[in-house]
Amino acid sequence: MKTFQAWATVPAKVELQLNGRRFPMERRQDGWWTANVAEATAGDDYGFILDGAGPFPDPRSASQPGGVHGLSRIVDGTIFPWTDKNFQAPPLSSAIIYELHIGTFTPAGTFLAAIERLDHLSALGVTHVEFMPVVEFSGNHGWGYDGVDLFAPHHAYGSPDDLKKLVNACHERGLAVILDVVYNHLGPSGNYLGKFAPYFTKKFASAWGEGINFDGPESGEVRRFFCDNALMWLRDFHFDGLRLDAVHGIVDTSATHILEQLKLEVESLSTHLGRHLVLIPESDLNDPRLLWSRERGGCQLDAQWSDDFHHALHTVLTGEGAGYYSDFGRLADIAKALRDAFVYDGGYSAHRRRVHGRPADGLSGRRFLGYLQNHDQIGNRARGERSAQLMSLGKLKIGAALILTSPFVPMLFEGEEWGAGTPFFYFTDYQEPELASAVREGRCREFAAFGWKPEDTADPQAPETFHQSKLKWDELSRPPHAEILDWHKKLIELRRTEPDLADGELKNVRVRFDEEKGWLVVERGKLSIVCNFAGRRQQIPVRTGKQTVLIASDEQVQAAEGYADASAEAVAILKMA
Amino acid sequence: MKTFQAWATVPAKVELQLNGRRFPMERRQDGWWTANVAEATAGDDYGFILDGAGPFPDPRSASQPGGVHGLSRIVDGTIFPWTDKNFQAPPLSSAIIYELHIGTFTPAGTFLAAIERLDHLSALGVTHVEFMPVVEFSGNHGWGYDGVDLFAPHHAYGSPDDLKKLVNACHERGLAVILDVVYNHLGPSGNYLGKFAPYFTKKFASAWGEGINFDGPESGEVRRFFCDNALMWLRDFHFDGLRLDAVHGIVDTSATHILEQLKLEVESLSTHLGRHLVLIPESDLNDPRLLWSRERGGCQLDAQWSDDFHHALHTVLTGEGAGYYSDFGRLADIAKALRDAFVYDGGYSAHRRRVHGRPADGLSGRRFLGYLQNHDQIGNRARGERSAQLMSLGKLKIGAALILTSPFVPMLFEGEEWGAGTPFFYFTDYQEPELASAVREGRCREFAAFGWKPEDTADPQAPETFHQSKLKWDELSRPPHAEILDWHKKLIELRRTEPDLADGELKNVRVRFDEEKGWLVVERGKLSIVCNFAGRRQQIPVRTGKQTVLIASDEQVQAAEGYADASAEAVAILKMA
Repeated sequence: MKTFQAWATVPAKVELQLNGRRFPMERRQDGWWTANVAEATAGDDYGFILDGAGPFPDPRSASQPGGVHGLSRIVDGTIFPWTDKNFQAPPLSSAIIYELHIGTFTPAGTFLAAIERLDHLSALGVTHVEFMPVVEFSGNHGWGYDGVDLFAPHHAYGSPDDLKKLVNACHERGLAVILDVVYNHLGPSGNYLGKFAPYFTKKFASAWGEGINFDGPESGEVRRFFCDNALMWLRDFHFDGLRLDAVHGIVDTSATHILEQLKLEVESLSTHLGRHLVLIPESDLNDPRLLWSRERGGCQLDAQWSDDFHHALHTVLTGEGAGYYSDFGRLADIAKALRDAFVYDGGYSAHRRRVHGRPADGLSGRRFLGYLQNHDQIGNRARGERSAQLMSLGKLKIGAALILTSPFVPMLFEGEEWGAGTPFFYFTDYQEPELASAVREGRCREFAAFGWKPEDTADPQAPETFHQSKLKWDELSRPPHAEILDWHKKLIELRRTEPDLADGELKNVRVRFDEEKGWLVVERGKLSIVCNFAGRRQQIPVRTGKQTVLIASDEQVQAAEGYADASAEAVAILKMA
Repeated sequence: MKTFQAWATVPAKVELQLNGRRFPMERRQDGWWTANVAEATAGDDYGFILDGAGPFPDPRSASQPGGVHGLSRIVDGTIFPWTDKNFQAPPLSSAIIYELHIGTFTPAGTFLAAIERLDHLSALGVTHVEFMPVVEFSGNHGWGYDGVDLFAPHHAYGSPDDLKKLVNACHERGLAVILDVVYNHLGPSGNYLGKFAPYFTKKFASAWGEGINFDGPESGEVRRFFCDNALMWLRDFHFDGLRLDAVHGIVDTSATHILEQLKLEVESLSTHLGRHLVLIPESDLNDPRLLWSRERGGCQLDAQWSDDFHHALHTVLTGEGAGYYSDFGRLADIAKALRDAFVYDGGYSAHRRRVHGRPADGLSGRRFLGYLQNHDQIGNRARGERSAQLMSLGKLKIGAALILTSPFVPMLFEGEEWGAGTPFFYFTDYQEPELASAVREGRCREFAAFGWKPEDTADPQAPETFHQSKLKWDELSRPPHAEILDWHKKLIELRRTEPDLADGELKNVRVRFDEEKGWLVVERGKLSIVCNFAGRRQQIPVRTGKQTVLIASDEQVQAAEGYADASAEAVAILKMA
């Protein structure tokens, strides 16, 4: 027997359709409709009929084998043979995160295929794997941010059990797993939630679709929907944390913000399970309130993405300065990011045409993720180029060194460790012609701001755009990929073994630089990360005293008394005797 | 010579029109246009021509003698003969506020006429006078919440100097003065700001009009506009504080909220001037963050209006329960308000159909204003009835006693002290027929939620609706008005002299009640406020020990050992020996 349930306050009548038959449902006072059906069993398909229309998938469907418009499938989630009982996720203070996209991480693009590449990640030395969104979205392939069945793993990636196998396999290798979840909007295709109940609000719109009703009438059940979703991934799928997509797209005027509530509920679960669970928002607000303790009036989230550090590095290393990159481009920005996390912490942003941000005073660097690349910064380019395609090998090594010696939690994007030659495009697979055109036109419009022309923009709907984005693992052994991989491994090893790099306190980070000459030195305890961005050899002043070169991007770098002699576009890590 | 200035980034060309002549203006890099005109002098009229259209009034006009669509007048604001140098506003901890509306406070309805009634307020014993909004709005009369020239006193009330005379006269009598300002929207008529620059946003709408651009591009100047406005009233007009209208209508996702910025700027001014200045928001959020210290992550505003206490009192005393009153109606609500300030501090609100609010733990009662009536609760009724028209004399006295012995900052609404027989309607004077119809229809729609019919609803546009709302001062000496006035004076005197009433700590407030029998006792130190809501005499248990009746609404109330013998609908304040 199974009890079917749906919260539905919009329709006057809700029926269950199960294996082609209709069953009446009963409405409770609180707007939940229920039906007990004796013959229902795992593997059966069902949907809900709303005022005679439908069937529509269950808003909390566990599986959508036929896609977003299809029926929901009953899944028995109780019998998975977990073997990760003794796994404990490493704390963020010692974490290195690896972001990957299930569909492009392997040729097959499935949960099970990803398992085959986990040993590579263990050998690389990362501690956390982060999956881009895996919930059911329209079509067979896509980034996943337009998910609509938030409780169902995407059918093209495999079954719910396949996802559990992948998480379990990560844990077996000592890898923690973070899932990217989107709580600021739902995708435009297959989103039937509004037919059930007031999940959405007209009060405001997010950049990607209708705003979610976190604070209006009946918002209590809407908040439960998202909190229950988070708790499900952590509890039933054993994820160790969630990355919260674009929380600036969440508008909630409640006295208790949904993110504060979510954090409290995740903390309770963490205590209950005896497992360390983290929440990591992406935010465009530069507002430390997300991280502040509850006593400080904050949401107490664990860490947030730090785009300012990315933009500072990216602009200096590539020379790019269009669109939002125009706010960055100086060594001073890198220095400020390393010392203060936010480059814009109350100063005027010319691109935003307003004051932006607030100081992150007193917060550890480990409350911020630092990255040279991520899915957005690569994929939201007309040609999907990675850093390796946008800068010299020397500069790529400087970037990697600054990330992996930073006070932040470093994050790599799949293939970054070997400077993958494959692009990572934005790709979609909308079945509706009008959505397909809209996404094509939207991309072209967005890219125009960066000076890219429509004809240079990869067509997101073209199947080859997706296929070209898949990693080519056979690159790995060839130059320069092997050399780039080796550099990353060395840096990760250094981060693991040098006590000075274990210090996340931003106030202990010293940075000196010369904007004109193009050098920058980061001092972290006894270590100095000496970066020569210039296209010519130069002597870079360093602290006096005996220093040895721990690692260098180039054999020609030498440490002398009071200075380092650095070849063009090179980086070296020195250590005081 | 005068320098004319306007921030205008929308038009390509801005010209000054002065005394019928046009003068070119020069655009600075930052979007400000300026012109120096030698012959300009106080009393001259001017406006700005935007791309050939206009003239439009100066967004920062100091005076609009011809109304919202007319020209702006140059005012010399530097020469007012202030005599209030030695005045210091009493702190909120000892304050009693008196809210008044300039247009209805006196028959003449002007700043100068109000001066003649200040001695009455001094004699009453209030410490602060609060003016409903006085800035230029459309038409000759109105509540003022649809102001559009935020730097100009309303022409029908008098000149800027008249307003200064009124503030000065208050200060001469020891009365502090608070001004009600509206920073969540601008009125629908005469609002030309959007023609100058992006003062408004399409991202969201307030309940009353376009949302204000506090966080988008160019919001820096918009924030300056409102902060400068606040500072002007406090600095140039000597106001001692501002009441911030409906701050829940302000949406600001900046890392530093506009209200936090405003408070910081007002604190700086306060230090600079050596005067105590307060900010008192009206908020529908039940969110203590407005009041929390900056260290606690709050805006550190001084006190906020407490509608929950009002609604709890009003529903119990009147038996009304329609619309938002449906969330209240029990003695338990009064008790909770007295102990916790917010009745809804995280619980489910059936009217809002969601969880509402957050505990105000640790905040003093003096951070909340307590009132039995205010302009909204009277005027937002179809017939504009005051409490005196909605309850028996006995219940009115109970209400007054609970307000004036409360741990909150008590507030009275003009005429409340004598139970004025005049209504206080919602009245408008829109000149545009479509606005006139819209406001009529809007009111009827709003009142329908309370069960009032259109034909019972006073026409806001009818001149008599305004005129009937004016106080009739000759009522004062007649029964029952003299008796009601005397009761208020006694209570205020008691509040001033009884040390136990000087305690604002909510944790020291004890409340006992019997919902069935209809009595409630508030214990504050040695005092007991014994309230019999029932329509029959009853014995109400009080603390053991010798008690004397300090004051009672009815001579028949007697204190005995362990109980008070209270006549129907009566209140007595007892004191332990």
